[in-house]
Amino acid sequence: MTVLTRGKRPASGPPVVARALGLLEAFDEVHVRLSLTELSRRSGTPVSSTARLASQMLAWGALERDEQGRYCVGLRLYEVGSLCPRSHDLREVALPFMGDLAEATRQHVLLAVREANVALLVERLSGHHAMPVLYRVGGRLPLHSTAVGLVLLAFAPEDVQAEVLAQRLSHEPEKVAVTPRSLRRSLADARRERAVVLRRRVPQPTMAVAVPITDAAGRVVAALSLVVPDHTTDPWRLVPALRTTAAAISRGL
Amino acid sequence: MTVLTRGKRPASGPPVVARALGLLEAFDEVHVRLSLTELSRRSGTPVSSTARLASQMLAWGALERDEQGRYCVGLRLYEVGSLCPRSHDLREVALPFMGDLAEATRQHVLLAVREANVALLVERLSGHHAMPVLYRVGGRLPLHSTAVGLVLLAFAPEDVQAEVLAQRLSHEPEKVAVTPRSLRRSLADARRERAVVLRRRVPQPTMAVAVPITDAAGRVVAALSLVVPDHTTDPWRLVPALRTTAAAISRGL
Repeated sequence: MTVLTRGKRPASGPPVVARALGLLEAFDEVHVRLSLTELSRRSGTPVSSTARLASQMLAWGALERDEQGRYCVGLRLYEVGSLCPRSHDLREVALPFMGDLAEATRQHVLLAVREANVALLVERLSGHHAMPVLYRVGGRLPLHSTAVGLVLLAFAPEDVQAEVLAQRLSHEPEKVAVTPRSLRRSLADARRERAVVLRRRVPQPTMAVAVPITDAAGRVVAALSLVVPDHTTDPWRLVPALRTTAAAISRGL
Repeated sequence: MTVLTRGKRPASGPPVVARALGLLEAFDEVHVRLSLTELSRRSGTPVSSTARLASQMLAWGALERDEQGRYCVGLRLYEVGSLCPRSHDLREVALPFMGDLAEATRQHVLLAVREANVALLVERLSGHHAMPVLYRVGGRLPLHSTAVGLVLLAFAPEDVQAEVLAQRLSHEPEKVAVTPRSLRRSLADARRERAVVLRRRVPQPTMAVAVPITDAAGRVVAALSLVVPDHTTDPWRLVPALRTTAAAISRGL
Protein backbone atom coordinates (compact mmCIF):
# COMPACT_ATOMS: atom_id res chain seq x y z
CA MET A 1 0.00 0.00 0.00
CA THR A 2 1.35 3.38 -1.05
CA VAL A 3 1.31 6.03 1.63
CA LEU A 4 -0.11 9.25 0.24
CA THR A 5 0.33 12.62 1.88
CA ARG A 6 -3.04 14.18 2.52
CA GLY A 7 -3.72 17.29 0.50
CA LYS A 8 -0.49 17.10 -1.48
CA ARG A 9 -1.12 17.49 -5.20
CA PRO A 10 1.23 16.74 -8.07
CA ALA A 11 2.84 19.90 -9.50
CA SER A 12 1.93 18.60 -12.91
CA GLY A 13 0.22 15.39 -13.91
CA PRO A 14 -2.61 14.04 -15.97
CA PRO A 15 -5.41 16.54 -16.67
CA VAL A 16 -8.31 16.62 -14.26
CA VAL A 17 -10.68 14.77 -16.62
CA ALA A 18 -8.23 11.88 -16.95
CA ARG A 19 -7.85 11.78 -13.16
CA ALA A 20 -11.63 11.76 -12.68
CA LEU A 21 -12.07 8.96 -15.20
CA GLY A 22 -9.09 7.23 -13.61
CA LEU A 23 -11.13 6.82 -10.42
CA LEU A 24 -13.44 4.54 -12.39
CA GLU A 25 -10.50 2.22 -13.12
CA ALA A 26 -10.39 1.39 -9.43
CA PHE A 27 -13.56 -0.66 -9.85
CA ASP A 28 -13.62 -4.17 -11.23
CA GLU A 29 -15.50 -7.41 -10.74
CA VAL A 30 -14.00 -8.08 -7.33
CA HIS A 31 -13.91 -4.40 -6.28
CA VAL A 32 -17.47 -3.27 -6.84
CA ARG A 33 -17.74 -1.15 -3.68
CA LEU A 34 -14.79 0.87 -2.36
CA SER A 35 -14.20 3.12 0.63
CA LEU A 36 -12.63 6.54 -0.01
CA THR A 37 -9.25 5.17 1.13
CA GLU A 38 -9.52 2.14 -1.17
CA LEU A 39 -10.65 4.33 -4.07
CA SER A 40 -7.69 6.61 -3.48
CA ARG A 41 -5.20 3.77 -3.19
CA ARG A 42 -6.47 1.73 -6.14
CA SER A 43 -6.61 4.76 -8.45
CA GLY A 44 -3.27 6.15 -7.26
CA THR A 45 -4.89 9.51 -6.49
CA PRO A 46 -4.25 11.39 -3.21
CA VAL A 47 -7.16 11.12 -0.76
CA SER A 48 -7.97 14.85 -0.91
CA SER A 49 -8.14 14.86 -4.73
CA THR A 50 -10.12 11.61 -4.69
CA ALA A 51 -12.69 13.15 -2.33
CA ARG A 52 -12.98 16.28 -4.50
CA LEU A 53 -13.22 14.41 -7.82
CA ALA A 54 -15.57 11.79 -6.36
CA SER A 55 -17.96 14.46 -5.08
CA GLN A 56 -18.26 15.89 -8.61
CA MET A 57 -18.86 12.42 -9.99
CA LEU A 58 -21.45 11.73 -7.29
CA ALA A 59 -23.25 14.96 -8.18
CA TRP A 60 -23.55 13.85 -11.79
CA GLY A 61 -24.39 10.24 -10.94
CA ALA A 62 -21.25 8.59 -12.32
CA LEU A 63 -20.67 7.28 -8.79
CA GLU A 64 -23.10 6.38 -6.01
CA ARG A 65 -22.58 5.65 -2.32
CA ASP A 66 -24.13 2.69 -0.54
CA GLU A 67 -25.54 2.57 2.98
CA GLN A 68 -22.07 2.07 4.44
CA GLY A 69 -20.79 5.13 2.56
CA ARG A 70 -18.76 3.08 0.11
CA TYR A 71 -18.48 4.27 -3.49
CA CYS A 72 -19.74 2.26 -6.45
CA VAL A 73 -20.39 2.90 -10.14
CA GLY A 74 -23.62 4.87 -10.61
CA LEU A 75 -26.72 3.84 -12.51
CA ARG A 76 -26.32 7.01 -14.63
CA LEU A 77 -23.10 5.59 -16.02
CA TYR A 78 -24.79 2.28 -16.77
CA GLU A 79 -27.45 4.25 -18.62
CA VAL A 80 -24.96 6.23 -20.71
CA GLY A 81 -22.77 3.18 -21.28
CA SER A 82 -25.75 1.35 -22.74
CA LEU A 83 -25.70 3.87 -25.62
CA CYS A 84 -22.36 2.55 -26.89
CA PRO A 85 -23.24 1.46 -30.44
CA ARG A 86 -20.68 -1.33 -30.56
CA SER A 87 -22.49 -3.18 -27.79
CA HIS A 88 -26.00 -1.81 -28.06
CA ASP A 89 -26.68 -2.23 -31.79
CA LEU A 90 -25.23 -5.71 -31.72
CA ARG A 91 -27.22 -6.76 -28.63
CA GLU A 92 -30.51 -5.51 -30.06
CA VAL A 93 -30.08 -7.56 -33.21
CA ALA A 94 -28.58 -10.60 -31.51
CA LEU A 95 -30.78 -11.11 -28.46
CA PRO A 96 -33.81 -12.84 -29.99
CA PHE A 97 -31.57 -15.21 -31.97
CA MET A 98 -29.49 -15.90 -28.90
CA GLY A 99 -32.72 -16.71 -27.09
CA ASP A 100 -33.45 -19.46 -29.58
CA LEU A 101 -30.05 -21.01 -29.00
CA ALA A 102 -30.41 -20.73 -25.23
CA GLU A 103 -33.77 -22.44 -25.38
CA ALA A 104 -32.39 -25.28 -27.50
CA THR A 105 -29.30 -25.90 -25.37
CA ARG A 106 -30.34 -24.65 -21.89
CA GLN A 107 -26.73 -23.80 -21.23
CA HIS A 108 -24.75 -20.60 -21.95
CA VAL A 109 -24.83 -18.45 -25.07
CA LEU A 110 -22.15 -15.75 -25.15
CA LEU A 111 -21.72 -12.70 -27.38
CA ALA A 112 -18.39 -10.87 -27.29
CA VAL A 113 -16.55 -8.07 -29.08
CA ARG A 114 -12.85 -7.25 -29.11
CA GLU A 115 -11.56 -4.14 -27.33
CA ALA A 116 -7.81 -3.74 -27.96
CA ASN A 117 -6.32 -7.06 -26.80
CA VAL A 118 -9.18 -8.42 -24.69
CA ALA A 119 -12.66 -9.71 -25.47
CA LEU A 120 -15.58 -7.97 -23.79
CA LEU A 121 -18.70 -10.00 -23.04
CA VAL A 122 -21.67 -7.90 -24.21
CA GLU A 123 -24.38 -10.50 -23.61
CA ARG A 124 -24.82 -13.82 -21.92
CA LEU A 125 -27.97 -15.91 -21.76
CA SER A 126 -27.83 -18.76 -19.33
CA GLY A 127 -30.22 -21.55 -18.55
CA HIS A 128 -31.46 -22.04 -15.06
CA HIS A 129 -29.60 -25.20 -14.37
CA ALA A 130 -26.65 -24.26 -16.55
CA MET A 131 -23.29 -25.18 -15.06
CA PRO A 132 -21.33 -22.36 -13.41
CA VAL A 133 -19.05 -20.29 -15.64
CA LEU A 134 -16.59 -17.54 -14.86
CA TYR A 135 -18.04 -14.92 -17.19
CA ARG A 136 -20.26 -11.91 -16.53
CA VAL A 137 -21.75 -9.33 -18.91
CA GLY A 138 -19.45 -6.33 -19.28
CA GLY A 139 -16.57 -8.48 -18.12
CA ARG A 140 -13.29 -9.16 -19.90
CA LEU A 141 -12.29 -12.48 -21.41
CA PRO A 142 -8.76 -13.33 -22.52
CA LEU A 143 -8.38 -13.62 -26.30
CA HIS A 144 -6.05 -16.61 -26.12
CA SER A 145 -8.00 -18.92 -23.82
CA THR A 146 -11.68 -18.55 -24.65
CA ALA A 147 -13.50 -19.73 -27.76
CA VAL A 148 -14.94 -16.28 -28.51
CA GLY A 149 -11.54 -14.73 -27.83
CA LEU A 150 -9.79 -17.06 -30.28
CA VAL A 151 -12.34 -16.24 -32.99
CA LEU A 152 -11.88 -12.51 -32.42
CA LEU A 153 -8.08 -12.84 -32.34
CA ALA A 154 -7.99 -15.01 -35.46
CA PHE A 155 -9.68 -12.25 -37.45
CA ALA A 156 -7.98 -9.31 -35.68
CA PRO A 157 -5.40 -7.05 -37.40
CA GLU A 158 -1.90 -8.54 -37.53
CA ASP A 159 -0.45 -6.06 -35.02
CA VAL A 160 -2.99 -7.18 -32.41
CA GLN A 161 -2.14 -10.83 -33.06
CA ALA A 162 1.58 -10.06 -32.85
CA GLU A 163 1.09 -8.23 -29.55
CA VAL A 164 -0.81 -11.14 -28.00
CA LEU A 165 1.63 -13.73 -29.39
CA ALA A 166 4.52 -11.79 -27.81
CA GLN A 167 3.00 -12.18 -24.33
CA ARG A 168 3.67 -14.99 -21.86
CA LEU A 169 0.30 -16.74 -22.01
CA SER A 170 -1.45 -19.40 -20.00
CA HIS A 171 -4.92 -20.75 -19.35
CA GLU A 172 -6.05 -19.36 -16.00
CA PRO A 173 -6.77 -20.41 -13.31
CA GLU A 174 -5.31 -23.80 -14.35
CA LYS A 175 -1.91 -22.16 -15.16
CA VAL A 176 -1.43 -24.30 -18.28
CA ALA A 177 1.04 -22.52 -20.58
CA VAL A 178 -0.07 -21.58 -24.11
CA THR A 179 2.92 -21.51 -26.44
CA PRO A 180 3.08 -19.07 -29.38
CA ARG A 181 3.31 -22.10 -31.66
CA SER A 182 0.10 -23.74 -30.38
CA LEU A 183 -1.71 -20.40 -30.38
CA ARG A 184 -0.63 -19.73 -34.00
CA ARG A 185 -1.98 -23.15 -34.96
CA SER A 186 -5.28 -22.49 -33.14
CA LEU A 187 -5.68 -19.18 -34.99
CA ALA A 188 -4.94 -20.77 -38.36
CA ASP A 189 -7.51 -23.50 -37.59
CA ALA A 190 -10.04 -20.83 -36.56
CA ARG A 191 -9.58 -18.96 -39.86
CA ARG A 192 -9.83 -22.14 -41.92
CA GLU A 193 -12.89 -23.57 -40.13
CA ARG A 194 -14.42 -20.19 -39.22
CA ALA A 195 -15.14 -21.87 -35.88
CA VAL A 196 -13.30 -22.68 -32.65
CA VAL A 197 -13.82 -25.60 -30.31
CA LEU A 198 -12.16 -25.18 -26.93
CA ARG A 199 -12.19 -27.54 -23.97
CA ARG A 200 -11.45 -26.36 -20.44
CA ARG A 201 -11.30 -28.27 -17.11
CA VAL A 202 -12.11 -25.33 -14.78
CA PRO A 203 -14.43 -24.64 -13.00
CA GLN A 204 -15.61 -27.96 -14.49
CA PRO A 205 -15.21 -29.89 -17.76
CA THR A 206 -16.55 -27.50 -20.33
CA MET A 207 -16.70 -27.29 -24.08
CA ALA A 208 -17.08 -23.97 -25.86
CA VAL A 209 -17.83 -23.60 -29.56
CA ALA A 210 -17.57 -20.14 -31.16
CA VAL A 211 -18.15 -18.67 -34.62
CA PRO A 212 -17.63 -15.16 -36.07
CA ILE A 213 -20.31 -12.52 -36.69
CA THR A 214 -19.61 -10.15 -39.57
CA ASP A 215 -20.83 -6.68 -40.51
CA ALA A 216 -22.21 -5.66 -43.91
CA ALA A 217 -18.65 -5.32 -45.24
CA GLY A 218 -17.80 -8.88 -44.17
CA ARG A 219 -15.50 -7.78 -41.32
CA VAL A 220 -15.62 -9.86 -38.12
CA VAL A 221 -17.17 -7.58 -35.47
CA ALA A 222 -18.18 -10.08 -32.80
CA ALA A 223 -18.09 -13.72 -31.80
CA LEU A 224 -20.95 -15.94 -30.69
CA SER A 225 -20.45 -19.07 -28.62
CA LEU A 226 -22.17 -21.91 -26.86
CA VAL A 227 -20.64 -23.17 -23.63
CA VAL A 228 -21.86 -26.62 -22.57
CA PRO A 229 -20.65 -29.38 -20.21
CA ASP A 230 -18.00 -31.47 -21.95
CA HIS A 231 -18.86 -34.95 -23.28
CA THR A 232 -22.56 -34.10 -23.64
CA THR A 233 -22.38 -33.85 -27.41
CA ASP A 234 -20.04 -33.77 -30.39
CA PRO A 235 -18.93 -30.10 -30.62
CA TRP A 236 -19.24 -30.11 -34.40
CA ARG A 237 -22.93 -30.89 -34.04
CA LEU A 238 -23.34 -27.47 -32.41
CA VAL A 239 -21.53 -25.61 -35.19
CA PRO A 240 -24.36 -25.59 -37.77
CA ALA A 241 -26.84 -24.09 -35.25
CA LEU A 242 -24.26 -21.48 -34.26
CA ARG A 243 -23.45 -20.67 -37.90
CA THR A 244 -27.13 -20.25 -38.77
CA THR A 245 -27.63 -17.95 -35.80
CA ALA A 246 -24.47 -15.95 -36.55
CA ALA A 247 -25.57 -15.56 -40.18
CA ALA A 248 -28.98 -14.27 -39.07
CA ILE A 249 -27.35 -11.76 -36.72
CA SER A 250 -24.81 -10.72 -39.38
CA ARG A 251 -27.64 -10.10 -41.83
CA GLY A 252 -29.40 -7.91 -39.28
CA LEU A 253 -26.39 -5.65 -38.68
CA MET B 1 -29.04 26.90 -32.66
CA THR B 2 -26.91 28.94 -30.29
CA VAL B 3 -23.92 30.66 -31.86
CA LEU B 4 -20.86 30.07 -29.72
CA THR B 5 -17.70 32.13 -29.92
CA ARG B 6 -14.75 29.90 -30.63
CA GLY B 7 -12.20 29.75 -27.87
CA LYS B 8 -14.19 31.86 -25.45
CA ARG B 9 -14.46 30.27 -22.04
CA PRO B 10 -16.78 31.14 -19.20
CA ALA B 11 -15.05 33.19 -16.47
CA SER B 12 -16.65 30.87 -13.97
CA GLY B 13 -18.92 27.90 -14.49
CA PRO B 14 -19.30 24.27 -13.59
CA PRO B 15 -16.05 22.50 -12.75
CA VAL B 16 -14.22 20.75 -15.57
CA VAL B 17 -15.30 17.25 -14.47
CA ALA B 18 -18.96 18.28 -14.57
CA ARG B 19 -18.45 19.77 -18.03
CA ALA B 20 -16.72 16.61 -19.27
CA LEU B 21 -19.49 14.40 -17.92
CA GLY B 22 -21.97 16.91 -19.33
CA LEU B 23 -20.77 15.99 -22.83
CA LEU B 24 -22.18 12.51 -22.21
CA GLU B 25 -25.63 14.03 -21.69
CA ALA B 26 -25.65 15.02 -25.34
CA PHE B 27 -26.17 11.37 -26.26
CA ASP B 28 -29.52 9.62 -26.13
CA GLU B 29 -31.43 6.95 -27.99
CA VAL B 30 -31.95 9.12 -31.07
CA HIS B 31 -28.55 10.85 -30.85
CA VAL B 32 -26.16 7.96 -30.70
CA ARG B 33 -23.52 9.49 -32.98
CA LEU B 34 -22.73 13.22 -32.95
CA SER B 35 -20.39 15.51 -34.88
CA LEU B 36 -18.21 17.90 -32.88
CA THR B 37 -20.64 20.76 -33.65
CA GLU B 38 -23.64 18.71 -32.55
CA LEU B 39 -21.84 17.55 -29.40
CA SER B 40 -21.00 21.18 -28.60
CA ARG B 41 -24.51 22.44 -29.27
CA ARG B 42 -26.37 19.64 -27.47
CA SER B 43 -24.13 19.84 -24.38
CA GLY B 44 -24.12 23.65 -24.35
CA THR B 45 -20.31 23.68 -24.31
CA PRO B 46 -18.26 25.96 -26.60
CA VAL B 47 -16.73 24.10 -29.56
CA SER B 48 -13.15 24.69 -28.40
CA SER B 49 -13.85 23.31 -24.90
CA THR B 50 -15.83 20.43 -26.39
CA ALA B 51 -12.88 19.48 -28.59
CA ARG B 52 -10.45 19.65 -25.66
CA LEU B 53 -12.67 17.70 -23.24
CA ALA B 54 -13.65 15.17 -25.91
CA SER B 55 -10.02 14.45 -26.73
CA GLN B 56 -9.37 13.57 -23.07
CA MET B 57 -12.43 11.36 -23.03
CA LEU B 58 -11.35 9.69 -26.28
CA ALA B 59 -7.93 8.99 -24.80
CA TRP B 60 -9.50 7.17 -21.87
CA GLY B 61 -12.14 5.41 -23.99
CA ALA B 62 -15.23 7.13 -22.59
CA LEU B 63 -15.90 8.31 -26.15
CA GLU B 64 -15.06 6.74 -29.50
CA ARG B 65 -15.15 8.10 -33.06
CA ASP B 66 -16.73 6.26 -35.95
CA GLU B 67 -15.49 6.10 -39.53
CA GLN B 68 -17.12 9.45 -40.34
CA GLY B 69 -15.37 11.07 -37.37
CA ARG B 70 -18.56 11.34 -35.33
CA TYR B 71 -18.39 10.84 -31.57
CA CYS B 72 -20.22 8.08 -29.74
CA VAL B 73 -20.14 6.55 -26.25
CA GLY B 74 -17.11 4.28 -25.88
CA LEU B 75 -17.07 0.58 -25.08
CA ARG B 76 -14.89 1.38 -22.01
CA LEU B 77 -17.82 3.27 -20.51
CA TYR B 78 -20.14 0.34 -21.25
CA GLU B 79 -17.64 -1.89 -19.46
CA VAL B 80 -17.43 0.35 -16.36
CA GLY B 81 -21.18 0.99 -16.37
CA SER B 82 -21.79 -2.75 -16.24
CA LEU B 83 -20.20 -2.73 -12.75
CA CYS B 84 -23.06 -0.67 -11.30
CA PRO B 85 -24.37 -2.97 -8.54
CA ARG B 86 -27.96 -1.75 -8.81
CA SER B 87 -28.23 -3.11 -12.34
CA HIS B 88 -25.56 -5.80 -12.36
CA ASP B 89 -26.41 -7.73 -9.19
CA LEU B 90 -30.08 -7.67 -10.08
CA ARG B 91 -29.53 -8.81 -13.68
CA GLU B 92 -27.30 -11.70 -12.62
CA VAL B 93 -29.96 -13.05 -10.28
CA ALA B 94 -32.92 -12.28 -12.52
CA LEU B 95 -31.77 -13.43 -15.97
CA PRO B 96 -32.32 -17.21 -15.71
CA PHE B 97 -35.77 -16.70 -14.18
CA MET B 98 -36.64 -14.13 -16.84
CA GLY B 99 -35.56 -16.68 -19.42
CA ASP B 100 -38.20 -19.10 -18.15
CA LEU B 101 -40.92 -16.47 -18.46
CA ALA B 102 -39.74 -15.47 -21.94
CA GLU B 103 -39.81 -19.09 -23.03
CA ALA B 104 -43.33 -19.55 -21.71
CA THR B 105 -44.76 -16.38 -23.25
CA ARG B 106 -42.51 -15.76 -26.28
CA GLN B 107 -43.16 -12.05 -25.88
CA HIS B 108 -41.35 -9.42 -23.77
CA VAL B 109 -40.08 -9.73 -20.23
CA LEU B 110 -38.87 -6.42 -18.73
CA LEU B 111 -36.85 -5.68 -15.61
CA ALA B 112 -36.64 -2.08 -14.43
CA VAL B 113 -35.35 -0.04 -11.49
CA ARG B 114 -36.21 3.50 -10.44
CA GLU B 115 -33.66 6.30 -10.82
CA ALA B 116 -35.05 9.56 -9.36
CA ASN B 117 -38.35 10.06 -11.20
CA VAL B 118 -37.87 7.71 -14.16
CA ALA B 119 -37.69 3.96 -14.56
CA LEU B 120 -34.57 2.52 -16.15
CA LEU B 121 -34.85 -0.69 -18.14
CA VAL B 122 -31.99 -2.93 -16.99
CA GLU B 123 -32.98 -6.03 -18.91
CA ARG B 124 -35.35 -7.08 -21.65
CA LEU B 125 -35.81 -10.53 -23.09
CA SER B 126 -37.88 -10.64 -26.25
CA GLY B 127 -39.12 -13.49 -28.34
CA HIS B 128 -38.29 -13.66 -31.97
CA HIS B 129 -41.72 -12.89 -33.24
CA ALA B 130 -42.62 -10.66 -30.33
CA MET B 131 -44.57 -7.57 -31.32
CA PRO B 132 -42.58 -4.31 -31.53
CA VAL B 133 -42.21 -2.28 -28.33
CA LEU B 134 -40.67 1.10 -27.68
CA TYR B 135 -38.26 0.02 -24.98
CA ARG B 136 -34.52 -0.67 -25.07
CA VAL B 137 -32.10 -1.83 -22.38
CA GLY B 138 -30.52 1.15 -20.60
CA GLY B 139 -33.42 3.31 -21.78
CA ARG B 140 -35.79 5.37 -19.66
CA LEU B 141 -39.44 4.59 -19.13
CA PRO B 142 -41.92 7.05 -17.63
CA LEU B 143 -43.12 6.08 -14.15
CA HIS B 144 -46.72 7.13 -14.80
CA SER B 145 -47.43 5.34 -18.06
CA THR B 146 -45.72 1.96 -17.94
CA ALA B 147 -46.62 -1.05 -15.81
CA VAL B 148 -43.12 -1.34 -14.32
CA GLY B 149 -43.09 2.43 -13.74
CA LEU B 150 -46.39 2.36 -11.86
CA VAL B 151 -45.15 -0.45 -9.62
CA LEU B 152 -41.94 1.46 -8.87
CA LEU B 153 -43.84 4.70 -8.26
CA ALA B 154 -46.44 3.03 -6.04
CA PHE B 155 -43.70 1.87 -3.67
CA ALA B 156 -41.47 4.97 -4.01
CA PRO B 157 -40.97 7.50 -1.18
CA GLU B 158 -43.79 10.02 -0.81
CA ASP B 159 -41.71 12.97 -2.05
CA VAL B 160 -41.05 11.14 -5.34
CA GLN B 161 -44.77 10.40 -5.73
CA ALA B 162 -45.63 14.03 -4.94
CA GLU B 163 -43.12 15.27 -7.50
CA VAL B 164 -44.55 13.07 -10.24
CA LEU B 165 -48.15 13.87 -9.28
CA ALA B 166 -47.35 17.60 -9.55
CA GLN B 167 -46.32 17.22 -13.20
CA ARG B 168 -48.56 17.61 -16.22
CA LEU B 169 -48.69 13.98 -17.34
CA SER B 170 -49.85 12.13 -20.42
CA HIS B 171 -49.42 8.80 -22.17
CA GLU B 172 -47.00 9.38 -25.03
CA PRO B 173 -47.07 9.23 -28.04
CA GLU B 174 -50.88 9.00 -27.86
CA LYS B 175 -51.10 12.29 -25.90
CA VAL B 176 -53.81 10.96 -23.59
CA ALA B 177 -53.79 13.03 -20.38
CA VAL B 178 -53.22 11.28 -17.05
CA THR B 179 -54.93 13.20 -14.23
CA PRO B 180 -53.46 13.28 -10.70
CA ARG B 181 -56.71 11.68 -9.52
CA SER B 182 -56.52 8.69 -11.90
CA LEU B 183 -52.80 8.27 -11.18
CA ARG B 184 -53.42 8.30 -7.41
CA ARG B 185 -56.04 5.61 -7.88
CA SER B 186 -53.67 3.51 -10.03
CA LEU B 187 -51.00 3.76 -7.34
CA ALA B 188 -53.42 2.75 -4.59
CA ASP B 189 -54.54 -0.23 -6.71
CA ALA B 190 -50.91 -1.17 -7.31
CA ARG B 191 -50.16 -1.15 -3.59
CA ARG B 192 -53.26 -3.16 -2.74
CA GLU B 193 -52.85 -5.78 -5.49
CA ARG B 194 -49.04 -5.67 -5.54
CA ALA B 195 -49.49 -5.83 -9.31
CA VAL B 196 -50.31 -3.47 -12.19
CA VAL B 197 -52.18 -4.22 -15.40
CA LEU B 198 -51.80 -1.54 -18.06
CA ARG B 199 -53.25 -1.48 -21.57
CA ARG B 200 -51.78 0.72 -24.29
CA ARG B 201 -52.82 1.24 -27.95
CA VAL B 202 -49.43 2.31 -29.35
CA PRO B 203 -47.48 1.08 -31.25
CA GLN B 204 -50.18 -1.63 -31.15
CA PRO B 205 -52.73 -2.97 -28.65
CA THR B 206 -50.59 -4.11 -25.79
CA MET B 207 -51.12 -5.35 -22.29
CA ALA B 208 -48.42 -5.10 -19.65
CA VAL B 209 -48.53 -6.79 -16.27
CA ALA B 210 -45.96 -5.86 -13.63
CA VAL B 211 -45.11 -6.95 -10.09
CA PRO B 212 -42.55 -5.72 -7.54
CA ILE B 213 -39.24 -7.35 -6.65
CA THR B 214 -38.04 -6.80 -3.08
CA ASP B 215 -34.69 -6.95 -1.34
CA ALA B 216 -33.89 -8.88 1.83
CA ALA B 217 -35.40 -6.05 3.91
CA GLY B 218 -38.67 -6.20 1.94
CA ARG B 219 -38.08 -2.89 0.13
CA VAL B 220 -39.20 -2.73 -3.51
CA VAL B 221 -35.98 -2.44 -5.53
CA ALA B 222 -37.19 -3.37 -9.02
CA ALA B 223 -40.22 -4.26 -11.10
CA LEU B 224 -40.71 -7.22 -13.41
CA SER B 225 -43.23 -7.22 -16.24
CA LEU B 226 -44.63 -9.18 -19.12
CA VAL B 227 -45.71 -7.24 -22.20
CA VAL B 228 -48.01 -9.20 -24.55
CA PRO B 229 -50.46 -8.37 -27.34
CA ASP B 230 -53.80 -7.32 -25.88
CA HIS B 231 -56.76 -9.75 -25.93
CA THR B 232 -54.52 -12.81 -26.07
CA THR B 233 -55.14 -13.75 -22.47
CA ASP B 234 -56.69 -12.58 -19.20
CA PRO B 235 -54.01 -10.38 -17.59
CA TRP B 236 -54.68 -11.85 -14.16
CA ARG B 237 -53.71 -15.27 -15.50
CA LEU B 238 -50.19 -13.91 -15.99
CA VAL B 239 -49.90 -12.54 -12.46
CA PRO B 240 -49.21 -15.86 -10.63
CA ALA B 241 -46.31 -16.69 -13.01
CA LEU B 242 -44.91 -13.19 -12.56
CA ARG B 243 -45.29 -13.34 -8.78
CA THR B 244 -43.54 -16.71 -8.60
CA THR B 245 -40.68 -15.39 -10.73
CA ALA B 246 -40.43 -12.15 -8.74
CA ALA B 247 -40.38 -14.14 -5.48
CA ALA B 248 -37.57 -16.33 -6.80
CA ILE B 249 -35.56 -13.25 -7.83
CA SER B 250 -36.27 -11.51 -4.50
CA ARG B 251 -35.04 -14.56 -2.63
CA GLY B 252 -31.83 -14.51 -4.67
CA LEU B 253 -31.01 -10.88 -3.84
